[in-house]
Amino acid sequence: MELSIGIDIGGTNSPFGIVTAEGEVLANGSIKTGEYTQPEDFAKTMSGLIHAELEKLDSSYTLKGIGIGAPNGNHFQGTIEFAPNLPWKGVVNLIFLFQQFFDVPIYVTNDANAATIGEFVYGKGKGLKDFMVVTLGTGVGSGFVSNGELIYGHDSFAGELGHTIIVEDGRDCACGRRGCLETYASVTGLIRTTQIMLAKSSRKSLLRETPADQLTGKHVGDAAAQGDALALEILDYTAKRLAFSLANAVAITSPQAIFLFGGMARAGDLLLGPLKRYFEDYLLYLYKNKVLIEISALTEQNAAVLGASALVWHELQ
Amino acid sequence: MELSIGIDIGGTNSPFGIVTAEGEVLANGSIKTGEYTQPEDFAKTMSGLIHAELEKLDSSYTLKGIGIGAPNGNHFQGTIEFAPNLPWKGVVNLIFLFQQFFDVPIYVTNDANAATIGEFVYGKGKGLKDFMVVTLGTGVGSGFVSNGELIYGHDSFAGELGHTIIVEDGRDCACGRRGCLETYASVTGLIRTTQIMLAKSSRKSLLRETPADQLTGKHVGDAAAQGDALALEILDYTAKRLAFSLANAVAITSPQAIFLFGGMARAGDLLLGPLKRYFEDYLLYLYKNKVLIEISALTEQNAAVLGASALVWHELQ
Repeated sequence: MELSIGIDIGGTNSPFGIVTAEGEVLANGSIKTGEYTQPEDFAKTMSGLIHAELEKLDSSYTLKGIGIGAPNGNHFQGTIEFAPNLPWKGVVNLIFLFQQFFDVPIYVTNDANAATIGEFVYGKGKGLKDFMVVTLGTGVGSGFVSNGELIYGHDSFAGELGHTIIVEDGRDCACGRRGCLETYASVTGLIRTTQIMLAKSSRKSLLRETPADQLTGKHVGDAAAQGDALALEILDYTAKRLAFSLANAVAITSPQAIFLFGGMARAGDLLLGPLKRYFEDYLLYLYKNKVLIEISALTEQNAAVLGASALVWHELQ
Repeated sequence: MELSIGIDIGGTNSPFGIVTAEGEVLANGSIKTGEYTQPEDFAKTMSGLIHAELEKLDSSYTLKGIGIGAPNGNHFQGTIEFAPNLPWKGVVNLIFLFQQFFDVPIYVTNDANAATIGEFVYGKGKGLKDFMVVTLGTGVGSGFVSNGELIYGHDSFAGELGHTIIVEDGRDCACGRRGCLETYASVTGLIRTTQIMLAKSSRKSLLRETPADQLTGKHVGDAAAQGDALALEILDYTAKRLAFSLANAVAITSPQAIFLFGGMARAGDLLLGPLKRYFEDYLLYLYKNKVLIEISALTEQNAAVLGASALVWHELQ
């Protein structure tokens, strides 16, 4: 049996999984990222846990490689570069660190690219040569597959759809610029829209039952599901901004499908309905009625680890 | 000696060239597209001319293939599909038509993609794996190379940067939508900007010596070269709109270089200067001071034919 290991390094938790080529997770675990001020200690503890899980496996296996998804992960260098939400500063050479403990190929990429490769290897992207994945969480990430290959760009930092500017002089973005897609289409952006719309109007809304600074994406989704007009309007506005950006991206890579993923995607048809309508409106005639928009096949719990493990199968192909 | 043939099917003229692997044009010619109401007659006459030129060659040669660049050229199908500016309606199967006269592989793509492949094989894109080409002529075309391959997309229609919307509810575009990059950054867009700016202000300008409906890109370039403030402002505005779009495209494919081409590029540093400044301003920090913007190495006269011929070398690789 051939196995790969997926590690998802996150700001709070860093889960890992031992995964088959079919995407079955045979064993998993997690450590708290913040407890390791030195990346060396992190790699050592993580590697020890993985080895312990491998030894417990019943059947014989061949470990083919390790895939690591991490914020600001550089695929070409095998490093994390200046990730703002991790305890380790500067450049961390993940390949070097994990090579001390494993004698297999080690691959690194950023989280959104890992999700894209996960969709490619295990999910709805299987067999497609041209598609994109957009992760709608705290931020907005993306990955583009063209000609059957992930677009890394010359520096490994391609696929930052969340930081394309969609509104000139729009909302302040954490990147230091203004009007990025992320400020409208992430869960955080949705909350900003909610706070603005609540403050602008005096219409009744279920959303007024929660203090404005305690609102979450779930509040908006739940209110919309109950037919709350303001909540529906908030989702409609968010869908329109996202549709605008997706339609522009289509004119660059002309994908066959777009898979959505992350917290925002949980709103389901309440978001997808208006999104698809606006998307078709915005598309150039060449692309109309050709591009599928669907929710990702991967569950949020597993996707990051699966995506990281999928890196191994993809690179070995 | 190995040779390829490049054919550039245009609305008015359709030039061809017999080209070496180094990009030397050994012989060329041209026919008037409009004189052929049937594509069969066009292919027959064009093929006859090419065979006549091949027979005149001094040395022995091997013909490796034919590349054809055409508006709405579909690379996967080998067809032209509903090209508005050609005399032939509907779908024209170029491969089928030219196979009657040549026993070599025949490749088709659209004009901007041909220019991109030309830059890749003969020009400044040689050896690069990730770059983009933007053609700034009557319209705005583009081609993206990622992972060493042209991005065709699933339907062969990728690379329409000119039809990404950069201003919501902006200028009317020929595509039926509003605010496309093409309405600002093409030569036609430059003239529209000129007419608007002349009408809005009453400032003195060399541009007022020409009737507004007779203005060309050359008038604007010449006036700017003489220090005309309004002309410089027009170029500045155009550069800013283009920079915005290029910076957003960089966030998707992260290219190492952007090569500009076509009528607008003739303005040289008068356009490039402000373009580079605005471009760096608009870029996400990850990409700043990394992406080269240069004028294409191919001359406008040869580029279309060279690009089409380059398709052959690229496909044979």
